[in-house]
Amino acid sequence: MNYIIGVDGGGTKTEAVAYGVAGNIISESKAGYGNLLINEEHAITNIIQAIEQCKAPIENGKCLYICLGLAGYGGVKNPQGIKSALTKAFNIPFTIVNDGIIAHAALLKGKDGVLTISGTGAVSIGTHDGAVEQAGGWGHLLGDEGSGYWIAMKAFINMTKEDDEGLEQSQLTGALLSKLGFQRVGDLKKFIYSATKADIAAFVPLIVEQAEASDEISEKILIQAGYHLAKNALDVCRKLNVGENVTIAMKGSILTQVRLVQSSFIEHIQLEKPDVNFIVDEVSSTLGCYYIAVKHIS
Amino acid sequence: MNYIIGVDGGGTKTEAVAYGVAGNIISESKAGYGNLLINEEHAITNIIQAIEQCKAPIENGKCLYICLGLAGYGGVKNPQGIKSALTKAFNIPFTIVNDGIIAHAALLKGKDGVLTISGTGAVSIGTHDGAVEQAGGWGHLLGDEGSGYWIAMKAFINMTKEDDEGLEQSQLTGALLSKLGFQRVGDLKKFIYSATKADIAAFVPLIVEQAEASDEISEKILIQAGYHLAKNALDVCRKLNVGENVTIAMKGSILTQVRLVQSSFIEHIQLEKPDVNFIVDEVSSTLGCYYIAVKHIS
Repeated sequence: MNYIIGVDGGGTKTEAVAYGVAGNIISESKAGYGNLLINEEHAITNIIQAIEQCKAPIENGKCLYICLGLAGYGGVKNPQGIKSALTKAFNIPFTIVNDGIIAHAALLKGKDGVLTISGTGAVSIGTHDGAVEQAGGWGHLLGDEGSGYWIAMKAFINMTKEDDEGLEQSQLTGALLSKLGFQRVGDLKKFIYSATKADIAAFVPLIVEQAEASDEISEKILIQAGYHLAKNALDVCRKLNVGENVTIAMKGSILTQVRLVQSSFIEHIQLEKPDVNFIVDEVSSTLGCYYIAVKHIS
Repeated sequence: MNYIIGVDGGGTKTEAVAYGVAGNIISESKAGYGNLLINEEHAITNIIQAIEQCKAPIENGKCLYICLGLAGYGGVKNPQGIKSALTKAFNIPFTIVNDGIIAHAALLKGKDGVLTISGTGAVSIGTHDGAVEQAGGWGHLLGDEGSGYWIAMKAFINMTKEDDEGLEQSQLTGALLSKLGFQRVGDLKKFIYSATKADIAAFVPLIVEQAEASDEISEKILIQAGYHLAKNALDVCRKLNVGENVTIAMKGSILTQVRLVQSSFIEHIQLEKPDVNFIVDEVSSTLGCYYIAVKHIS
């Protein structure tokens, strides 16, 4: 039985799935993070472990190809370490791409189109006739407009503006301070400069709740998030020179679970491209590895 | 001979100066950083050392008061450590304030007015009839608009937008990439996410150079910086409810050395308050400690 292994290496866990040549799942495994930028040595150990555990139960089978999608891979200065480790451990042909590329292939079933992801960060990736283009994905200091981190920071920055301008405290500011357990807006720095990006993005549900209770500031931030994500997707379409009938897929908790962001995203895209085919689907990114591997083998 | 010690504890060095009761300098010393947020234990050791070295050469003198202005002091969760250490080491009355407060007192000679600082960060601090107000000073993630870090990031973010939108590379982007030693805009992340704030702010001279060579993007960023700094200063004036004849002092390399930022700052303030008295002066912030200490003693 011939099979293919797909690996999705993220910032918290690595998922490996063995697919039969017809795309059927044969075996699955999980290990620790696979982002080489966190700690290269640990990430490589986790990735090798995930692949080994995925292969272990498949008796009399032959692994034809391994496709890996690793978070942060675009920022790796020298990929020789992971490449040597994979060759030494398995001696099976493999390819490594960014995690966005496998997510794109998974949602678009290996076909052309644009994928917009908004979770803690935000990026749009598109393919068309062999070309690949991206917009966003610059990280929290340079961009990530429309991401969960960005949405929460917009609300926190609004607090600082109210304070600077001596304005009355808004309902949103009151709710944020209450969740933070702070009395004064000035205490905000103590939180922001010791928090992780995930700690900050964890305030999104509170902002969504406020928007659902008709808080105008919260509504505006979520609508702006959708606009920025739509702009990224349209930038990618323009760079790829695609026509009207493009498929745009959505992934990530912000774009798939926050109604106001998603509706703003769709509306702003439809202003320019009314015939877009949208996809929102819950599929494992490792399925994208399968589609990519099949292209490499055939 | 009675004297007062002023201490300016910054992120890289601590400066202590002993002033006679008439404001004459008697003794000076320097030590390592005095920002408690970097490492409290080391910062306390540095501060104590600076004060001891400043006192050492003054024979038969009596230190009446110590006033300390420490960078980041507003973010210190529990100031008991530094307070106990000072009491134990010297047993002299003292007061500790943020470094912005002593800079304000130094430039305004202990009188009311507004101080706007723009170096790596940016803040405005004002006093009027016993009230103290601030705008800005939120740090690089929440604000610092008009600071050196902000100016450089504006230029870097402009690079990412050009790339996202598939625009032709601007002259500014070419100059930044050349200084970074990168071929592709996509490599920018490798620099930004491993650089310090000072590393990033170090690109300001290149942007100033480009603006002087009439690069429109650079000019616009510097003019915007002046506008944001002016807005902060005017927000403070509004919160203090000062009249037209307020004094506004400027400090920090961006506001005192970058002509285009300074002229934009002055112009935007004059639009609202044409009679402002501006001060740009090179004085040691420890002189502000002297003015504050004199008020405490008398």
